[in-house]
Amino acid sequence: MSILTPDIQSELEQQGIELPSWAFGNSGTRFRVFATAGTPRDPYEKIADAAKVNEFTKLAPSVALHIPWDKVDSYEDLRKHAEDLGVELGTINSNTFQDEDYKFGALTHHDDRIRRKAIDHHLECIDIMDATGSRDLKIWLAEGSNYPGQGDMRARQDRLQESLQTIYARLGEEQRLVLEYKFFEPAFYHTDVPDWGTSYAQVASLGDKAMVCLDTGHHAPGTNIEFIVMQLLRLGKLGSFDFNSRFYADDDLIVGSADPFQLFRIIFEVVRGGGLNNPDVAFMLDQCHNIEDKIPGQIRSVLNVQEMTARALLVDRDALAAAQQANDVLAANAVFMDAFYTDVRPALAEWRESRGLAADPMAAYAASGYQQQIAADRVGGVQAGWGA
Amino acid sequence: MSILTPDIQSELEQQGIELPSWAFGNSGTRFRVFATAGTPRDPYEKIADAAKVNEFTKLAPSVALHIPWDKVDSYEDLRKHAEDLGVELGTINSNTFQDEDYKFGALTHHDDRIRRKAIDHHLECIDIMDATGSRDLKIWLAEGSNYPGQGDMRARQDRLQESLQTIYARLGEEQRLVLEYKFFEPAFYHTDVPDWGTSYAQVASLGDKAMVCLDTGHHAPGTNIEFIVMQLLRLGKLGSFDFNSRFYADDDLIVGSADPFQLFRIIFEVVRGGGLNNPDVAFMLDQCHNIEDKIPGQIRSVLNVQEMTARALLVDRDALAAAQQANDVLAANAVFMDAFYTDVRPALAEWRESRGLAADPMAAYAASGYQQQIAADRVGGVQAGWGA
Amino acid sequence: MSILTPDIQSELEQQGIELPSWAFGNSGTRFRVFATAGTPRDPYEKIADAAKVNEFTKLAPSVALHIPWDKVDSYEDLRKHAEDLGVELGTINSNTFQDEDYKFGALTHHDDRIRRKAIDHHLECIDIMDATGSRDLKIWLAEGSNYPGQGDMRARQDRLQESLQTIYARLGEEQRLVLEYKFFEPAFYHTDVPDWGTSYAQVASLGDKAMVCLDTGHHAPGTNIEFIVMQLLRLGKLGSFDFNSRFYADDDLIVGSADPFQLFRIIFEVVRGGGLNNPDVAFMLDQCHNIEDKIPGQIRSVLNVQEMTARALLVDRDALAAAQQANDVLAANAVFMDAFYTDVRPALAEWRESRGLAADPMAAYAASGYQQQIAADRVGGVQAGWGA
Amino acid sequence: MSILTPDIQSELEQQGIELPSWAFGNSGTRFRVFATAGTPRDPYEKIADAAKVNEFTKLAPSVALHIPWDKVDSYEDLRKHAEDLGVELGTINSNTFQDEDYKFGALTHHDDRIRRKAIDHHLECIDIMDATGSRDLKIWLAEGSNYPGQGDMRARQDRLQESLQTIYARLGEEQRLVLEYKFFEPAFYHTDVPDWGTSYAQVASLGDKAMVCLDTGHHAPGTNIEFIVMQLLRLGKLGSFDFNSRFYADDDLIVGSADPFQLFRIIFEVVRGGGLNNPDVAFMLDQCHNIEDKIPGQIRSVLNVQEMTARALLVDRDALAAAQQANDVLAANAVFMDAFYTDVRPALAEWRESRGLAADPMAAYAASGYQQQIAADRVGGVQAGWGA
Repeated sequence: MSILTPDIQSELEQQGIELPSWAFGNSGTRFRVFATAGTPRDPYEKIADAAKVNEFTKLAPSVALHIPWDKVDSYEDLRKHAEDLGVELGTINSNTFQDEDYKFGALTHHDDRIRRKAIDHHLECIDIMDATGSRDLKIWLAEGSNYPGQGDMRARQDRLQESLQTIYARLGEEQRLVLEYKFFEPAFYHTDVPDWGTSYAQVASLGDKAMVCLDTGHHAPGTNIEFIVMQLLRLGKLGSFDFNSRFYADDDLIVGSADPFQLFRIIFEVVRGGGLNNPDVAFMLDQCHNIEDKIPGQIRSVLNVQEMTARALLVDRDALAAAQQANDVLAANAVFMDAFYTDVRPALAEWRESRGLAADPMAAYAASGYQQQIAADRVGGVQAGWGA
Repeated sequence: MSILTPDIQSELEQQGIELPSWAFGNSGTRFRVFATAGTPRDPYEKIADAAKVNEFTKLAPSVALHIPWDKVDSYEDLRKHAEDLGVELGTINSNTFQDEDYKFGALTHHDDRIRRKAIDHHLECIDIMDATGSRDLKIWLAEGSNYPGQGDMRARQDRLQESLQTIYARLGEEQRLVLEYKFFEPAFYHTDVPDWGTSYAQVASLGDKAMVCLDTGHHAPGTNIEFIVMQLLRLGKLGSFDFNSRFYADDDLIVGSADPFQLFRIIFEVVRGGGLNNPDVAFMLDQCHNIEDKIPGQIRSVLNVQEMTARALLVDRDALAAAQQANDVLAANAVFMDAFYTDVRPALAEWRESRGLAADPMAAYAASGYQQQIAADRVGGVQAGWGA
Repeated sequence: MSILTPDIQSELEQQGIELPSWAFGNSGTRFRVFATAGTPRDPYEKIADAAKVNEFTKLAPSVALHIPWDKVDSYEDLRKHAEDLGVELGTINSNTFQDEDYKFGALTHHDDRIRRKAIDHHLECIDIMDATGSRDLKIWLAEGSNYPGQGDMRARQDRLQESLQTIYARLGEEQRLVLEYKFFEPAFYHTDVPDWGTSYAQVASLGDKAMVCLDTGHHAPGTNIEFIVMQLLRLGKLGSFDFNSRFYADDDLIVGSADPFQLFRIIFEVVRGGGLNNPDVAFMLDQCHNIEDKIPGQIRSVLNVQEMTARALLVDRDALAAAQQANDVLAANAVFMDAFYTDVRPALAEWRESRGLAADPMAAYAASGYQQQIAADRVGGVQAGWGA
Repeated sequence: MSILTPDIQSELEQQGIELPSWAFGNSGTRFRVFATAGTPRDPYEKIADAAKVNEFTKLAPSVALHIPWDKVDSYEDLRKHAEDLGVELGTINSNTFQDEDYKFGALTHHDDRIRRKAIDHHLECIDIMDATGSRDLKIWLAEGSNYPGQGDMRARQDRLQESLQTIYARLGEEQRLVLEYKFFEPAFYHTDVPDWGTSYAQVASLGDKAMVCLDTGHHAPGTNIEFIVMQLLRLGKLGSFDFNSRFYADDDLIVGSADPFQLFRIIFEVVRGGGLNNPDVAFMLDQCHNIEDKIPGQIRSVLNVQEMTARALLVDRDALAAAQQANDVLAANAVFMDAFYTDVRPALAEWRESRGLAADPMAAYAASGYQQQIAADRVGGVQAGWGA
């Protein structure tokens, strides 16, 4: 009998991880953006690639868009394109960091005109959400300053609240605003939403439809991220995850690749706090495949989340509670580690096959010839990227 | 004419920094606590030393106590002793990290008996506050766990809230509870109050008399502390500072010694946010003089805060605002740095003399012979320390 | 057939990890050292406990001593005691951080008398090595300063070299000196041997019998430790490991508990560089069991090293090389992760049994009644600790 | 009389800081490169701008070039252009991070063809050095890997040594190779030259003409950089500085802006170790002016170095030595801080005027109209940047 009990299988069956359209485009560092054959030239091709990830894993039912990178003439048409390929359009991500006007801020800018422009951009994003049927507007703000004295941090914070209120007021009944925080980059002295506390304080005063987005790469060195997961779930304000991993800063590596044990701890805390397969808590990827292939990079990522979810679900919660109750540090830790060290891959492969999927999605994708096909087909045009 | 305008002088005149009684006892690391001649043997001697700091600086009108380290038979008597020496008894600090019962937690412990014991300790502290006339109960919790799985972080957080509510309910009309957060140590995996967000969330649900205490050494590497100062002032929840400095972890070095520019930025943000000489925002030291002399170490510390306050008050706020408004990064930064680089020491020396103080409190203390006297007098007995 | 090939089994059979005598005594933080029933009162009892770890694992054939904590009247007698229990006396660790004379330095001190005293302490350690039959003198220096300007870093570095030369000259033909580095603590501004580069430069100019000791907890946040392992092996200067783990600073947690994947990468690099079961590269533990039981804490630790060694040996090196050669990032990473994710525990349990050991050493120790016995027997006397 | 003694003035007079040509082009982050009016379109215009910095400060006698960004048809012509403007061509910087071939390494690549191409690029750089009269070839390697297992770190290190030997062999009698290290970025798992120890080990085995380059932004959080300065000077291997500053990672902010006290400590250690105005130790800037004006950004930078040098020279070395000798921690630190807190700006302004320079170079530049002129003149063409 499989180590994956029916209960665990049921949880795994419900699991869905949203893919970021931009992960299929080129990305890199300030030093270089390397290109790859087959990279999409438009949102339609990005969605086609994302649908491939879902085809081989049944783990990625939706795709997040980034505006303006994914602007199209007809979002209805894009939506139909996605649905034809078996996926949905998901979260809409705004962009307030690439317009020349936003050099010194957007939603926090002291210039009314620029701030209004940034607000209007978000209202436009909500219009798009109406067309795509998206629930979430995700706001990550690159705003901040590079030198002490450059900006008035307090006034910026107040203006941020005002701007968010205006945006919030435009949300539909079933729509949400999720505010992402980030420790630093691209601002190098202060960032206007640098930590979960700031994001929480900002969204708490907006209302029930405003939540926090936790990007796993956006913390100071050494931060206990699962603690924040616990706390935000406790406070009812964990709206979504941006999964990725890092060794240093916001490296945007494949989720689980830098510290698999940390991913295990995070997902365990999600389970503990009732956040798994809870519609209030969206699972998303936000990664950069600077040097590795993009589609298999995304497949690897959703599999990592799935495998770690299986491990987290394997924790013997009763035994854990008993050891905790007894203050038996080594026993409690052993229960925890036992689940982490269990190799769930064979059981998952079997389970996948039982659902009509390939046992090894990575191998199946490689064998499918899709990569070769897009490399051959997608000649000419401009490969998608961040346009930095 | 002095660079210290009448307005600045007025601010400086009001400034008071509370001293921690334990700074006058021995402290050290897990590797060694070195002793020094003249170290106090009891709370009375600690207060005598603290009063010396105030005598030479007029900057340290009160002394914080730590219970049980500073337990005495009569707090009324201790209070009179302090007042006779020209200082007041200030914040009462609780201790939930040295009793064997607290090995796995205190206010968060799953064992009702232990949790109740820890709560009762705080109620006793409030009794002492009634006797000493102290306003603030400062709670720093060493609680946490060393290994993943050891504790149920979520349940601990909930129990913490319950415990705090019980303590909060006992506060007098004019009393406050300030909850300190700390990144890590002595717990090495998770800490129950690890960041300002947690402290804020906990105290916000208690009520108006509960505030956050910000210890400048209790953050992850790279954290922008002045941003947190700004945010807590904005949220009306900055109750007090524990000043010290560090290069690495919670080094507890003399405030301003590791990064003077950071101290400048912090105090500027205090000024900006209306926190200077605001009774709601207490300035305290929390330091360890492991290898340097303790009394001059404290004198140096309050002088550092004073000097940096003078610099922060020198910032040309109009010029700064104009440069910010113009997005002139270099000009804004220059206005800011100009104040920091101004050598306020000669003007402060003059001003001190005008108030009947020694121009150079460090030299005056050294010349006073007090250090030699206590070294000669305080022979026998057990030097005060943390009793770790 | 076992996943542990005969080659892997042969490597595992040779593996030996030295235990630190002090891990069996009490330890803690500057805030508190908690006691435990059954803690040894003298070096003989520490060795008895260490021998238990070896009895249940056959992984811990030797015990490191710390002077003066482990001073005894007759080292010959202590040696016989150890050998009777099936273990050897190993590395001798010196201590230059607890004598009042060493408050401002020892081997680096500007005072000739103090420096000479510190050198003489090391010569005495070598005398003890002659008596115990130990090969290695391990030098970890707590020396440094807390405030900029306090010490002349350059002169201290030069004096360190001179002191080490004197000590080095006293080494026997088969003896070695290993110099440990540490990022910070107990010094909080500068440490005289803060990084591998300094340790390397110092020992390189001493000669072939001087090597670097790498403590896995002694690095700046984010440091790629396996890179340093690779580099020191390449330079022929990796003398020994002090294994432990950490989330923040020098937490001294159980090896592999904070970041098991990091331990895997480190041991893989040891294997890659020819350092496994190479007598030149000693494996040691250096941990603190502040809140967990000490003997099972050590058993857990050597098992963690063994399990991770098995995983590192499972890496398909040919497949890895092929993927690297092809610049196939995802394939190379997959080969690497495949070994890490393999659950080696069942095969190791079987293999242990085939060698006459308990399949589960933790359970076997718990069932042995030894812990209860020492708790009952070791009453009275002073429990061993650091005496800080 | 000025606080700047004749000895100090003599040191200041000799001071020269090399400017990076690329600081005058556009730079930014992976999120955005903002443009500015007046940005140079070619190396000639960059040098013209650099010459302006020197004109107003007499602190910047030379300009470093980056190949291929600064490739021109005739380096003799470029050299004459520079000399006509009163500056020299300085260090030649190679680039092995932007060619598609270098995606997985250059000097460390396993592919002989690519490695040879990277070596040849460096030989071409030396040819250019012959033409420009440059002494130093600076090698910063972006090489590394993003995922564990991706590369064979050990083999890469060995190939790096071989490649460097080939390049080293081509150096002229008076030419040098300086090898820069960097903690991380653009590689996010391992970097082939991540720390000073690696750079030192690599150049030590090359020979006397190979030295280490220390970029102040290329260290792990909390690293004591002045210690490394001390150590490299002690080992005779400090070849050059890349000055800049940072709060987080390699932020490349204006030198001295993030932590002025750190810059003071670094320059003090340079003075202490005989590195000031020592031709072996080149002072260079390596910064990004992402949002501030570039020419005044560079003026501000060289002034910051000058001001901090003046402060470092003001340290009363005899008093410092006496306090250190007496183990008087507070006194030694006070001597040190006294110099740091001294406002040297008025004396420097006076001294500048005595040398025929503007007292305030920032104001003088602003008043010169040069910025307006280049903004008006440099219309059309492609603004210089990194071409990432």
